[in-house]
Amino acid sequence: MPEAAAPSAKTKTVTACVLLIGDEVLSGRTRDANLSYIAKHLNQIGVQVREARVIPDIEAVIVSTVNEVRARYDYVFTTGGIGPTHDDITADSIAKAFGVGIDHHPDALATLEAHYKATGGEFTAARKRMARIPLGATLIDNPLSKAPGFQIGNVFVMAGVPMVMQVMLDSLTGRLEGGATMQSRTVSGQIGEGTIAEKLGALQQRYPDIGIGSYPYYRGKVFGTSLVMRGTDVALLDRVAGEAAALMREFGVEPVIGEPA
Amino acid sequence: MPEAAAPSAKTKTVTACVLLIGDEVLSGRTRDANLSYIAKHLNQIGVQVREARVIPDIEAVIVSTVNEVRARYDYVFTTGGIGPTHDDITADSIAKAFGVGIDHHPDALATLEAHYKATGGEFTAARKRMARIPLGATLIDNPLSKAPGFQIGNVFVMAGVPMVMQVMLDSLTGRLEGGATMQSRTVSGQIGEGTIAEKLGALQQRYPDIGIGSYPYYRGKVFGTSLVMRGTDVALLDRVAGEAAALMREFGVEPVIGEPA
Repeated sequence: MPEAAAPSAKTKTVTACVLLIGDEVLSGRTRDANLSYIAKHLNQIGVQVREARVIPDIEAVIVSTVNEVRARYDYVFTTGGIGPTHDDITADSIAKAFGVGIDHHPDALATLEAHYKATGGEFTAARKRMARIPLGATLIDNPLSKAPGFQIGNVFVMAGVPMVMQVMLDSLTGRLEGGATMQSRTVSGQIGEGTIAEKLGALQQRYPDIGIGSYPYYRGKVFGTSLVMRGTDVALLDRVAGEAAALMREFGVEPVIGEPA
Repeated sequence: MPEAAAPSAKTKTVTACVLLIGDEVLSGRTRDANLSYIAKHLNQIGVQVREARVIPDIEAVIVSTVNEVRARYDYVFTTGGIGPTHDDITADSIAKAFGVGIDHHPDALATLEAHYKATGGEFTAARKRMARIPLGATLIDNPLSKAPGFQIGNVFVMAGVPMVMQVMLDSLTGRLEGGATMQSRTVSGQIGEGTIAEKLGALQQRYPDIGIGSYPYYRGKVFGTSLVMRGTDVALLDRVAGEAAALMREFGVEPVIGEPA
């Protein structure tokens, strides 16, 4: 593939934090579906999610959290709070975090106006609210429901509805500069964690550049352990995965390479 | 019910932070199932989850995060990282956060020894690791798989496997002192958020003690809005929910009280 750099050529580590903004996630009403999607998507382009936070729809909390994490990570991705109702305060909070004003963005207004004209909906003052964008921000296209997200500095602001978040994530991906892509290998077998733990710890010590995670699984009466190897060096990763598989065989268990059997 | 105080008699606000500890949640491999369960369970006893964080299996991050949030919230609940393998570093990290030592807890050792004797599993050094508990902590019973969680100060440390976390949460609940219970009412209807947003904002302004959230929903070709009212004053809550329902009827939409239709 001469047209794309091989992932192994990129060695820089690029980090991200995901902020899930919304009372409904903290109250337990809504089970978040965005974090795992965002994390997998970003990892494919070499951006590693290092932290995620779920915070309420409270301006002071959004402002202080955004300012803390945008200084600490290369990128910040937020979901939630950019709709037309009074509880959608993310755009205003982000403007405050960056110390800039906020106003109706002409391109966003035009897109929304055309959308409501085409669909027969009334372009209410509340709907115009969705065109309010911090000054200096650039829009993130939303082909699905038109109301855009936006980028300001290293912060990307997206919708909370998963379908809409996903199209926004596609829209903004071209702007990201990824680094090393974290690759993984999974070796699973019907064996208890406690049985292989000691030898597994020794394996981890021999290969400090590969992170080895051990995750028990239960499927009815079948239980076992999935070992997940993570790293950026594919050859080394395959070698450690091979040794992990051999380790299971030592205990008479035939491993499955890939997801848990 | 003379034996239990009525929820409305408790007016204190009791807050909590949930820490989901684990690389597998941050990488997107595992979609968290614990936060919404914990939030709903705690709210029933008057403990309000105000923040959640997903952090990696890195000692320095766990230590600094635990120390930050245990000072800020009444309670902290952690999940993950207390199994028998090398990547289970939560107990050691919590000991370090509190500046105390860690050792095998005699009761935990006895419970695990009896368990492995009964089930025929070998009580390996790795499995004994699950009895290592920070000094001064009290155990949290785990009727399911025996390896205990623990409480130290206002921090409750639980397993990451949802079934195990859930029995630990039941075990520890008697130790919590809850405050005001956040109650909620949901009013849903097939109407766009943008249509009712303006009048809804006015409703919110008239009742500042009730939080009104507006959440769009999509079910195939059916879309609508769920309005969720939250507050501790049940009479006031019912009044606001009644007005929210009347607001939908103003637009010719018959609302459903409860979950989205």
